[in-house]
Amino acid sequence: MSVAELFNPRSIALVGATDKSGWSVSTLANLREHGFPGPVHLVNPRGGTVHGSPAYRSLAEIPEPVDLAYVMVPTAAVLDVLRDGAKLGIRSYVVLTAGFGESGEEGARMEAEIAAFAAEHGLAVLGPNGNGYINAAAGVTPYGLPIPKPLLRGAVGVVLQSGALASSVLAFAQARNLGVSLLTSMGNETVVSVTDVVDYLVDDPATKVIALFLESIRNPAEFSRVARRALEAGKPIVALKIGRSKLASHTAQAHTGALVGDDDVIDAALRGLGVIRVRSLEDLIITAGLLASTGPLRGRRIGVVTPSGGAAEIIADRAEDEGLELPPFAPETVERLKEIVPAFGTVQNPLDVTGYVLIDRTLLGRALEVVTADPGIDVVMLLSEPPRVEPADPAPTFALYTASAQRIAASPVPVVVVSNVLTDVTAFGRRVQQETGYPYIAGGIEHGMHAIGAAARWSRTRARVLSRPAPAPASPTAVPPDARGVWAEHRAAALLASAGLPVVPSELVRDEDAAVAAAGRFGHPVVLKVAAEGLGHKSDIGGVRLGLGGDEDVRQAYRALAAAVPAMEGVLVQPQRGGGIELLVGIVRDPAWGLTLAVGLGGVWVEVLRDTALRVLPVDAAEVRTALSELRGAALLNGVRGGEPADLDAVADVVARVTFLAETLGDRLESLEINPLLVTGSQVEALDALVTWTS
Amino acid sequence: MSVAELFNPRSIALVGATDKSGWSVSTLANLREHGFPGPVHLVNPRGGTVHGSPAYRSLAEIPEPVDLAYVMVPTAAVLDVLRDGAKLGIRSYVVLTAGFGESGEEGARMEAEIAAFAAEHGLAVLGPNGNGYINAAAGVTPYGLPIPKPLLRGAVGVVLQSGALASSVLAFAQARNLGVSLLTSMGNETVVSVTDVVDYLVDDPATKVIALFLESIRNPAEFSRVARRALEAGKPIVALKIGRSKLASHTAQAHTGALVGDDDVIDAALRGLGVIRVRSLEDLIITAGLLASTGPLRGRRIGVVTPSGGAAEIIADRAEDEGLELPPFAPETVERLKEIVPAFGTVQNPLDVTGYVLIDRTLLGRALEVVTADPGIDVVMLLSEPPRVEPADPAPTFALYTASAQRIAASPVPVVVVSNVLTDVTAFGRRVQQETGYPYIAGGIEHGMHAIGAAARWSRTRARVLSRPAPAPASPTAVPPDARGVWAEHRAAALLASAGLPVVPSELVRDEDAAVAAAGRFGHPVVLKVAAEGLGHKSDIGGVRLGLGGDEDVRQAYRALAAAVPAMEGVLVQPQRGGGIELLVGIVRDPAWGLTLAVGLGGVWVEVLRDTALRVLPVDAAEVRTALSELRGAALLNGVRGGEPADLDAVADVVARVTFLAETLGDRLESLEINPLLVTGSQVEALDALVTWTS
Repeated sequence: MSVAELFNPRSIALVGATDKSGWSVSTLANLREHGFPGPVHLVNPRGGTVHGSPAYRSLAEIPEPVDLAYVMVPTAAVLDVLRDGAKLGIRSYVVLTAGFGESGEEGARMEAEIAAFAAEHGLAVLGPNGNGYINAAAGVTPYGLPIPKPLLRGAVGVVLQSGALASSVLAFAQARNLGVSLLTSMGNETVVSVTDVVDYLVDDPATKVIALFLESIRNPAEFSRVARRALEAGKPIVALKIGRSKLASHTAQAHTGALVGDDDVIDAALRGLGVIRVRSLEDLIITAGLLASTGPLRGRRIGVVTPSGGAAEIIADRAEDEGLELPPFAPETVERLKEIVPAFGTVQNPLDVTGYVLIDRTLLGRALEVVTADPGIDVVMLLSEPPRVEPADPAPTFALYTASAQRIAASPVPVVVVSNVLTDVTAFGRRVQQETGYPYIAGGIEHGMHAIGAAARWSRTRARVLSRPAPAPASPTAVPPDARGVWAEHRAAALLASAGLPVVPSELVRDEDAAVAAAGRFGHPVVLKVAAEGLGHKSDIGGVRLGLGGDEDVRQAYRALAAAVPAMEGVLVQPQRGGGIELLVGIVRDPAWGLTLAVGLGGVWVEVLRDTALRVLPVDAAEVRTALSELRGAALLNGVRGGEPADLDAVADVVARVTFLAETLGDRLESLEINPLLVTGSQVEALDALVTWTS
Repeated sequence: MSVAELFNPRSIALVGATDKSGWSVSTLANLREHGFPGPVHLVNPRGGTVHGSPAYRSLAEIPEPVDLAYVMVPTAAVLDVLRDGAKLGIRSYVVLTAGFGESGEEGARMEAEIAAFAAEHGLAVLGPNGNGYINAAAGVTPYGLPIPKPLLRGAVGVVLQSGALASSVLAFAQARNLGVSLLTSMGNETVVSVTDVVDYLVDDPATKVIALFLESIRNPAEFSRVARRALEAGKPIVALKIGRSKLASHTAQAHTGALVGDDDVIDAALRGLGVIRVRSLEDLIITAGLLASTGPLRGRRIGVVTPSGGAAEIIADRAEDEGLELPPFAPETVERLKEIVPAFGTVQNPLDVTGYVLIDRTLLGRALEVVTADPGIDVVMLLSEPPRVEPADPAPTFALYTASAQRIAASPVPVVVVSNVLTDVTAFGRRVQQETGYPYIAGGIEHGMHAIGAAARWSRTRARVLSRPAPAPASPTAVPPDARGVWAEHRAAALLASAGLPVVPSELVRDEDAAVAAAGRFGHPVVLKVAAEGLGHKSDIGGVRLGLGGDEDVRQAYRALAAAVPAMEGVLVQPQRGGGIELLVGIVRDPAWGLTLAVGLGGVWVEVLRDTALRVLPVDAAEVRTALSELRGAALLNGVRGGEPADLDAVADVVARVTFLAETLGDRLESLEINPLLVTGSQVEALDALVTWTS
């Protein structure tokens, strides 16, 4: 739903305004002190004077049109306010009141009524059980907690599924001298959802980066849609998605009633969508601020200019953690730097221009100019502290930062300024930044390096995702008529083969003689496997016989299988394969995100290490290849101990085609597993398969 | 060497004082403004007026005794100052001057002269090429860069192998409202070393925790000694040791001329010594501050009290990362909390007391009191922000924090206060903390959870290490007379067997008939291996024949080996073992840390995953068991796919005894490797071994 009107009202009514409520006091103070230009009307059923001004008894008494009602009435009275408002043509609401779905059955019932009424009348309702929003870009601040001054306008849009953290995030952004465009505390998302707000921010010209605090992703399809739009618009989404631990998932359920999905799948989904997932509130804001300052990076080669050897070494360690490269400087860069850096220093990347900066304050800036011109560098990191305390004569400080700001602005590549440690930008530091045009400063090497790494990864993902067409939902073109229950190997394999996928040859036989004949056609040794409807893990019940080298072996194996599984349909005879590398290819339907691919090495790699790479479908062969490279045992694919290296293109092609098949099998496909997929050089062949359907 | 006099002078001379030097200006200002009670004399060879006071032409002109000379003269003049001072009986020096070993050969020569002179005359020299130190506990601040006010006295001693970062670390500690006892910028460590300062801090009553920034550990034996002393004194050492990446190791060499050792070994050594290794400057200071506040923790079960559901969920995620437990509250705790927490809240750990704290400001404190009384909790985490801005009437704020401070002080378990995000403690926040006795606040959930996890790990390691006797250096009691070169299997295995270690039986034979006879005695199948002096990896040259099932097989194999290695001494005949789990046990001498044990699973686990656990010797069987549990493939030891589980006590016992043997083999032992050590249940047997000696 469109929320542009919700976030840009020309007049506001505070319904339930009262001197007794801190929320009421704060909301009015925020609107008055942070520049809301329109009228603010107070509504209290008893009328009288509230916050020193006369109050109306109802919305209907207000003589002017109202664009937004900010609702703080008791839980049971909220619906009546919406009814009154709807009659008057008020289309936007912020409901601060709690006591709805988060507090029990009766609350959930009232919340459902509000949802139904809003849908019927086309109302945009933010909340309930949220603090409201801060549209700093427009100076509209219907927000129930105190907003510390100064409220900084900027390019980061923040959306939070948590009321209590909203103020902390705002305080942290202010301490970083980072402005926001819009900050929204979502509450219960009864009507307006996170994705509605993200949709708005993608279109909002004031917003360059979107920062999310997420407890749950309620509508993955909708989330995927807006994430794709953000990627196309070049607006990074940075997300702190909680619920990584099992315990957190339990906590979140208690807290919001939201379902927290399996975190591994969420992680794969977010990566696939180019959403930058972070672990801390600090990384959320510092990373968002950095991307708002640099935009996409063209690569991950960083050049580093510092006044400190110790810092240079921390940076080198962290660069490795973040997958960033610190290439040697080009020869011409080295030559030019040798003229600048004192003789006792060492010219290398990261560059320590030495403590001589204390004597020659132009040293750092001159070195920066040279490094930004290096042809092999994608982004330059400048280690520099903002000034903390105003000196007696601030003029030299302003001159120095002005000169630096000009050098940074003139750089052909993005320059990221990072401080040694994460301390607040002080009031004086903020003044220097504002008056000299000095750019955003990422707070501290630790979080700053994370932010640069995240920016590089996002830039790469964005280029990759945008180089492919937007995924169209696959149509269920190949749903078998009898798709139900568990399809054991003989039917699953036939399904794969019918789609042109390589499957080990096999024959389904129903007596010993036929088994012997089939074995003869394949040549020994062969494998016999029991074939029975609904049978999943046949090796667990002794349903597989390997290495049968002659007719008598085949007969004995057939009889053993028949004895073990009397209800068997028959027996599958296959040539026995040897050597090669065994992969596991599993496609399962996640209840939230849909079909998900897990690919990994077979055997102990899966059992002991859980070494699989996950992707939410759709994927293409290139993406499968990337997934294979992420496996901890990836080196095995390149051939260890004289083994033949796997043809990764061939493997990726087959795995991708398996996913294409799965996408055409309709909604009742629950899982499709190939285990093992045997890879011998460029030979790729499914040796066993299992398909399960719902109902 | 003792540095107590160095850090506690009663009078100071600034040698090389001049109005032209910022260092000179800052050092004098620091001494005057941060409370140094004794006289400060200025020395300049030209005399006259410096910094507004008369200057002496030399140390000899000063009419009073001088305890400490702070030296800022040109590089070539430093030795003369030491000579003058030594004559006058001045025993302590801080040398700020650079241009020594870090700048080339001539500088290294001058540095060596200083080292020799200081050793000869028993002088304590800090530096050169360092900023000096700040003894905040005693108000002695001979430090060359501006010290921002207020300088906070506290319990954290900081030692840095970096001058430029010292001021950043100090600024960060100040922003956390965390005081230091002593902060030292080491410079080149020509005379006074990091370990000298740590030794002092272990004895310093003002210091509870020691924080180190390390580029290199120059003397591992000495470092181990002081780390053990700190552990015994109950003073945690927190260390940011850089050089994790290959690039950083290169950078550090350029920067200080220090050798950076292999980081994996350093990591193992630090863990074994109970040193808390951190990744960032923020974690260094926040973790040190937390430990100074809590002391050792009795366990890792945390109870969490927060006013925010969102924060509770971030905490649950981070607790899992840090290996902390969030146990359910005891039934009586739940009952009591239900009377406090609003009905719409959920009583669980982590506890969200709900946004109702905004209405009832006693809510959080009352809940805290209940949780601290829970019998199943080792440490309580309270999420609370320090106040940032002074309100019009600060009295209620002071009353609230006073009440909280009293509750926290009365708690039977340590209470750690953590804020949502890492922002500075403001001047008002500092005042509130100081005047109400409110404890240290760990800055932000991200770093706060790291600090709690580190404190719990340190407490556990401390208990474990102190429960064992301090390691005594093993005496080389078993050095073989012919210990040189590479000892191939037959000699290495004999060495192991002579020490009572289980080794597969074998016979060294010198002709076919003897091989057949030996095989007969062992029973088939057998293994034949070439035995040749100096031969390392014999399987690479076809020197091993497996699965020999009869006499003819043995004869053929013997002939093949003889043909492959004409210079062989003979052939080893062994019974062939099957099944079981193969381990690799390697003991190698690290050039810095001495004998180091690497233990892991054999085969692809080592080759592909590099899945080994490292320990610097000495270790005991309990430590080896812990090491085995750290392997990523540890589950294999418990028996996967129906395999017999390994008897871990038996394995640990054998591996520990191998390390005991290695410790008695003298300094020329370079490596001792058993690969594989075969484990079948409680049967443990070395199937192959290799020993290398220097020279």
